Amino acid sequence: MPNEASVNEKGYEALRERLRRLQVLGSVSGLLGWDEQVNLPEGAGEQRAAQAELLAELQHAAATDAGLGAAITGCEQALAAGGLDADARVVVLAARRDFDRVTKLPSELVAEKARLSSEGYHVWAAARKARDFSAFAPVLEKHLALARREAALLGFGDRPYDLAIDRHDPGLTAAQIGGLFVELRAGLVPLARRIGVRVAAAKARGEGPVAMRGFDVTAQQRVVRAVTARLGFDYKRGRLDVSLHPFCEGSGDDVRLTTRFNADDPLDALYSSIHEAGHGLYEQGLPLAHAGTALGLAAGMAVHESQSRLWENQVARSQAFWSWLEPMMRAEFPNELSGVSGVALHAAANAVEPGGLIRVDADEVHYNLHILLRFELERRLFAGTLKVADLPGAWDELSEEMLGRRPAHAGEGVLQDVHWSGGAFGYFPSYTLGNMIAAQLWTAARRALPGLEGEFARGEFGGLLGWLRTEVHAHGRREDAFELTKRVTGETLGPKALLAYLEERYGN
Amino acid sequence: MPNEASVNEKGYEALRERLRRLQVLGSVSGLLGWDEQVNLPEGAGEQRAAQAELLAELQHAAATDAGLGAAITGCEQALAAGGLDADARVVVLAARRDFDRVTKLPSELVAEKARLSSEGYHVWAAARKARDFSAFAPVLEKHLALARREAALLGFGDRPYDLAIDRHDPGLTAAQIGGLFVELRAGLVPLARRIGVRVAAAKARGEGPVAMRGFDVTAQQRVVRAVTARLGFDYKRGRLDVSLHPFCEGSGDDVRLTTRFNADDPLDALYSSIHEAGHGLYEQGLPLAHAGTALGLAAGMAVHESQSRLWENQVARSQAFWSWLEPMMRAEFPNELSGVSGVALHAAANAVEPGGLIRVDADEVHYNLHILLRFELERRLFAGTLKVADLPGAWDELSEEMLGRRPAHAGEGVLQDVHWSGGAFGYFPSYTLGNMIAAQLWTAARRALPGLEGEFARGEFGGLLGWLRTEVHAHGRREDAFELTKRVTGETLGPKALLAYLEERYGN
Repeated sequence: MPNEASVNEKGYEALRERLRRLQVLGSVSGLLGWDEQVNLPEGAGEQRAAQAELLAELQHAAATDAGLGAAITGCEQALAAGGLDADARVVVLAARRDFDRVTKLPSELVAEKARLSSEGYHVWAAARKARDFSAFAPVLEKHLALARREAALLGFGDRPYDLAIDRHDPGLTAAQIGGLFVELRAGLVPLARRIGVRVAAAKARGEGPVAMRGFDVTAQQRVVRAVTARLGFDYKRGRLDVSLHPFCEGSGDDVRLTTRFNADDPLDALYSSIHEAGHGLYEQGLPLAHAGTALGLAAGMAVHESQSRLWENQVARSQAFWSWLEPMMRAEFPNELSGVSGVALHAAANAVEPGGLIRVDADEVHYNLHILLRFELERRLFAGTLKVADLPGAWDELSEEMLGRRPAHAGEGVLQDVHWSGGAFGYFPSYTLGNMIAAQLWTAARRALPGLEGEFARGEFGGLLGWLRTEVHAHGRREDAFELTKRVTGETLGPKALLAYLEERYGN
Repeated sequence: MPNEASVNEKGYEALRERLRRLQVLGSVSGLLGWDEQVNLPEGAGEQRAAQAELLAELQHAAATDAGLGAAITGCEQALAAGGLDADARVVVLAARRDFDRVTKLPSELVAEKARLSSEGYHVWAAARKARDFSAFAPVLEKHLALARREAALLGFGDRPYDLAIDRHDPGLTAAQIGGLFVELRAGLVPLARRIGVRVAAAKARGEGPVAMRGFDVTAQQRVVRAVTARLGFDYKRGRLDVSLHPFCEGSGDDVRLTTRFNADDPLDALYSSIHEAGHGLYEQGLPLAHAGTALGLAAGMAVHESQSRLWENQVARSQAFWSWLEPMMRAEFPNELSGVSGVALHAAANAVEPGGLIRVDADEVHYNLHILLRFELERRLFAGTLKVADLPGAWDELSEEMLGRRPAHAGEGVLQDVHWSGGAFGYFPSYTLGNMIAAQLWTAARRALPGLEGEFARGEFGGLLGWLRTEVHAHGRREDAFELTKRVTGETLGPKALLAYLEERYGN
C-alpha cells in the first residue's frame, strides 16, 4: 500500500498539471489577442472572432471540468489532514476560488454577459461619438444587474462591488479602499490645486513645457528598445511591437510589449514602453516552475500596476535617470534636440497639466483624481445610492470638486472610458492602489539600497530589479496587495508615501 | 413528423459545423506556427512547444470525436438514400476519409511518430553537419517501418508509398506518377544537358548572369509588396513578413506570406514572395462559405504548387512581366541598377545553373530532376528494392545520371532535405506535378485569354487571376489533380506542356 504522503503528492501534482494546462490554453487566447492588436489584416476580424470564441469555449470547458473539481477536493482533504505544505495551500485555495467562480455561474448568464459586452462596446462607441449618455444608460443598467446576479451566486450577496474588486485584486474590499481613498483625496486635492496655481502663473509668464516636433521614429524605436533592455527587460524572452494602444501580453518566456510612435511626442513612446516594460519585468520575474498556479501568478492588478508605475514614474522621471538618458537622446536626436536644454527636457518628462478632463492623458499627480472620481461613482452605483440616470450629473459635480472643471459634454466626461461598456467594474481602483504601492516600494527600496540613484545615473538598474525580483516577483500570489506591501515595506498599504513622493517631486 | 429532407439537411449542417470547428482549431495551430517562424523570442521555444502540443491534442480529440463519426455515418445513410446533393457527397466522402485516417491509427503509433519526428530532426541536423548518413539511417528505418504499419492499418497494406502520396494529393498513386515521371525524364535530361553545354560555352566566353550587390532592403520590401498586390494578393486579407524560410500560412481572410531579404540577391525576395503569393492567391480564392469542408479546401499539394509556380515562373519570369516591372525596379534602385541593362536583368531572372546539387537552389529546369531523383528513391525504399544502407550510393548514382554530378559528401547529397527526418514521404512528387499542371494551365489560359501577355506588359493580372478563380479556386477539393487538369485544360495531366514550356523558354 502506497504511503499517504505520496498519494497526497500525486494528487497535488495532478492538480498542478491541470492548472498548467489551463494556463497554456489561456496563453494561446492571449496570443490571439496580441496578434489581433499587432498583426491582424483588417478583413480578418470575423475569422479571428471565431478562433477566439472557440478557444474561450475550450478554456471554459477545461476550467469547469469535473475532474478538476475532484482534484481540488482531494487536495483540500489532504490539506485538512495536514498532508500538504503551505505552498500547496496557496495553490489549492486559489484553485478552489477560481473553480467556484467559474462553475457557480450558469452558462446562460455568462453568455448574456459576453453578448452584452460585445453589443455594449458598439453602443458605447456610438454614444460617445454622439455625446449622448442616455443611449448608453440601458447597457450600464443591464451590466449592473448582471453584476448583482453574479454577486448573489458567488456568495457576495450584499457586497456586489466587493466581488468586482476581488476579481482584479483578490482579498481587497471597497470599504478598505474607500478608507485609503478618503485619506488620499484629502492630501491630493490641495496639492493639485497648489500645483495648478503655480503652473498657471508660469503660463502667464510665458513658460511651459518645450514643444518637441519631428522626432525620427526609427531613432525613437532604438531608444525605447535600448532603454527597456537596460532596465532589465529580457528580449530573448520578449518583444516590443507597435499597436494603437500600448499593452503587455504574455508570461514566462514570451512576454510582449507594445507601444506607439508619434514624431511630435517622443516621450509618449518612451514612457508607455517603460510602463509596459514594468509589467513585463514582473511577468518575466514570476517563478516559471509554478506557471499556472497561484505561486506563479501576479499578486493582482494593483501590485502589477505598482511595477509599471514604479519604473515609469519613480525611476524614469527622476533626475538621476535623465542624467543617464540625456546623452543617448542627444546622440539619437542631434537636430531634434539642438534647441532643447537638459533642464527643459527633464521638465518635459515631469510636465504637469492641471485641468485635464481625460484620464488616459493625465500626469501622475492628476491621474489619481480621475480614479478617485470613478471609484466613488462605481461605489454609489453598486450601493444603489446613485441611479444610472443621475450618473452624468454626479460625474460632472465630482469633476468640478476634484479636477476643478466640469466636462463640456459626456464624451469628455462620463462616456470617456471603455471599461463600463464591458461590465469591467472595480478595475479603476487598481491603478491608484498601484501608485500607492509603487511609492511605498520606492521608499523601501531607497532605504534598502542606498546607492540607487547613483546607479541610475550610470544606467544601472540591476540593483532595483534584483530587489523587486526577490521581494515582489518571486512571491507570486502568496499574498494580497496589503500583505505584500506590509511584508516588503514594513508599512500598511496607504497613501502617505504616494503623497510624500508627489510632494517631493511636484510640490515646488 | 419533420420531413426526411429537412432531417437530412440538419444532419448535414451539423457535420459542416463540426468540420468548420476543426478547421478553426487547425487555424489556431497554424497561427502558432506562423508566429513561431516570424515572431517568437528565442527563449520561448519550450513555451511554444507546450502550446502547440496542447492544441494538437485538442485537434486530435475533435477529429476523433464519436459525435463526428456519427454525423458522418448519418450523412452517408442520407446519401445512400439519395437525400443529399453532389456537393454534399464531396464533403461527406472527404470527411469519412479523414475520420478513418485519424481514428484507425492507435494513439501509441501517433505518439511514436511525433516523438521520432522530433528526435529525428535533431539527429538529421547533426548528421548533416557531420556529413554522416549512418547516424541518420536508424531514424529513416524507423520512419519507414512506421509508414508501413500505418499503411497496413489504413487499408493500403501492399501500397505504403501510395498512402504517403495520397496524404498530400488525394487520389494519386505512385504508379500513375511514375509513368509521368519516366516520360518527363526522357525529355528533360537531354534538354538539361543541351542547356548545360550552352551555359558552359557562354561561361568560357566570360558571359554569365550579372552580379547584383547592395540592393536597399527597404526598397526591396516596397517592390515585393507592390508586385504581389498588383498580382492580386489582397493585403486587406493577408500580410507579408520576414522569416528564415519563405512560406504561406493561413486561409480565407487571413493569409500570411513570408519572405527573406538579401541585399546581394534582390531576385530571391522577389521570386520567393511571388511564389508564396501564388499559394496565397489560391487560399484567398477558395470559397469561404465552405471553409473547413472539402468544397473550401485546396485540391491537394500538387494543385497548390501549380498556383505558386504558375505565378512565379510562367508569369513573373516572362518578357512581358519584366517589361512592366523594369521601370519600377529602376525607380526603386536607380544606383543599384545603373550598370545593368534590361536584357541582363531579364536574363538574371531566367538564369539557369547546371550542375547544382542542392534542390532548393535549383532553377526551374533542374528543379524537376531533383524531384525525379527523390521520387525514384522513395519508391524503391518503399518497394523494398533499396535498403536504407544502400541509399547514399543510389542517391549519388542517380545524381550523376540526372544532374551530371556526384555529391562530394552526404551533406550536399542524401542528407540535404529535412523531409525524411519527419517521415514526410510522398511530398516531393507534388512539386513536379505542380510544375506540370502549371504549364498545362498556362497553355490553356493563353488559349482562353489571347491578350494575356499584353496585359502583363501593362501590369494587369486580373484576367489571369479571374480565370484561375473560376476554373481552379472556386472548385475546392471537388476533383483530384488529374480530374481538375482534364476539366480545365482538356488534356490529361502529363509532362508535355512542361517540356514544351521549358524548351520554349530555355531551349535556345
